[in-house]
Amino acid sequence: MDDFSFSAFETVLRRHARAVETVLDRLLSPALCDGEIARPPRLLAAMRHGVLNGGKRLRPLLVMESAALFDVRQETALPVAASLECVHCYSLVHDDLPAMDDDDLRRGQPTVHKAFDEATAILAGDALLTFAFDVLSGEDSGLSASAQVQLVRLLARAAGLGGMAGGQMLDLAAEHTPQGESEIITLQAMKTGALLRFACEAGAVAANATAEDRARLAEFGTAIGLAFQLADDVLDVTETSDILGKTAGKDIASGKATLVAFHGVDWARRQLDGLIEQANDVLAPFGQKAETLRQSAYFIARRQS
Amino acid sequence: MDDFSFSAFETVLRRHARAVETVLDRLLSPALCDGEIARPPRLLAAMRHGVLNGGKRLRPLLVMESAALFDVRQETALPVAASLECVHCYSLVHDDLPAMDDDDLRRGQPTVHKAFDEATAILAGDALLTFAFDVLSGEDSGLSASAQVQLVRLLARAAGLGGMAGGQMLDLAAEHTPQGESEIITLQAMKTGALLRFACEAGAVAANATAEDRARLAEFGTAIGLAFQLADDVLDVTETSDILGKTAGKDIASGKATLVAFHGVDWARRQLDGLIEQANDVLAPFGQKAETLRQSAYFIARRQS
Repeated sequence: MDDFSFSAFETVLRRHARAVETVLDRLLSPALCDGEIARPPRLLAAMRHGVLNGGKRLRPLLVMESAALFDVRQETALPVAASLECVHCYSLVHDDLPAMDDDDLRRGQPTVHKAFDEATAILAGDALLTFAFDVLSGEDSGLSASAQVQLVRLLARAAGLGGMAGGQMLDLAAEHTPQGESEIITLQAMKTGALLRFACEAGAVAANATAEDRARLAEFGTAIGLAFQLADDVLDVTETSDILGKTAGKDIASGKATLVAFHGVDWARRQLDGLIEQANDVLAPFGQKAETLRQSAYFIARRQS
Repeated sequence: MDDFSFSAFETVLRRHARAVETVLDRLLSPALCDGEIARPPRLLAAMRHGVLNGGKRLRPLLVMESAALFDVRQETALPVAASLECVHCYSLVHDDLPAMDDDDLRRGQPTVHKAFDEATAILAGDALLTFAFDVLSGEDSGLSASAQVQLVRLLARAAGLGGMAGGQMLDLAAEHTPQGESEIITLQAMKTGALLRFACEAGAVAANATAEDRARLAEFGTAIGLAFQLADDVLDVTETSDILGKTAGKDIASGKATLVAFHGVDWARRQLDGLIEQANDVLAPFGQKAETLRQSAYFIARRQS
């Protein structure tokens, strides 16, 4: 992909980000939905702090672009993208808690438990996760009820025991126990891969697409999930080497193994090339319509931060 | 209800409890569902500790009996009951955390963060909440997709920002700020009322019942939600009076106001009588089929623990 332009892709990324943020801002307003009793201002503010904090919104882009392949209308796809972003952001709010990764800052801002307090951060994460399923099952969504049920089930499985939450559990255990290669692959597929795969599959499910097309998008999502994590691990090593002058052995030394620590940066870069190629191949039947998705694979594999 | 027998009702309650526990035990086994990557044993064990801990299973009974009014098959209603119990139990796991109510024991057993650790308890609660939506959106559920979507939406709204999670937020704030009567009513309707109402409405929704029948069940659920909380507050006062010889003014003195503290125990008992009558009236059109639901209102209002 010689013609890849980071700045052009990032323009598209920002456009989708603004659209999904507009939806999130509207959904997380003080106005009550049918069946709600009150929206306590402090909890609402903490949820907004957790979700409207200037992320890249990569997952929403993947939802929007996979939906566009099947001509799903933008106003139909946006709530699906917004609900996924709620799940992603809830996981960050809880991961940042003192009992978990204990982070004070995220994207240069105080984390939710720092800006509010720990109890509020736990509840804000809980409420964001719950809200995702509210949004996904909304009235007048433009989706068939069957598509809505499938999206709920897929998202729950991607986010729960057998997906993201389970991956975070394995990640906590990995701090104390040396991990083999297959264990790392499982951990990463669960912790970050499952939601990225959901993001790509969601468009096909929303459109009631054929099983074959759905499988293609799932394969694309799996490939970029792997690329996302490998690129992260490469960045961890190369940034550290550049900035701190440390060696690539840091991760193994700290007890947290990665595939890059096992196989080295050159191997990882060859893997990333292969994953970009696989992503391109699997999207071939969609022609020019899939251009932004193809670029997203390149962006994920080659990003510098 | 002169013929009410606690022991007869408790026999029915135990029968439903065993049925829903069998389903929960099967759902929370090591066997993977489609789309899951792995079920980390420690997280699974913590979820089981949180949910298979011998609760009364009052909410599942309400789901099963409200579903039975409309001839929903038991195997169709059981997953709905199980999903609601997952939500109820997740809320207990998180409420017990050190940053929240900081409880070491629940039903005589160590709480999840005591039996495991705090991070695992946070994740187990997250995963139970997520699992509820997985179960509710299950394949081959016997429910119409439309009913499944409505149940997901209702449960999310009952449990989230505008329901239970919001109520817990208000409850935390109430420890520092004096509450007026209307604030207490809102707090209690959110924290405990919303899920009880969902439990009663769920059977009608599962059966695609008429709007009128659905409204009846929602009204019944609202009445027993109020009764549940009033009975709790009365027990708090009378148990304290009997056991510790303290007066009914304790709750106001501790800064946590209740309606009983405002109006007294006698008023509360008259209210409970009125709520039992209202519950009976609203169920009248269902005749003998609603006998267990009628008894549940009596049980909730008159229970001794």
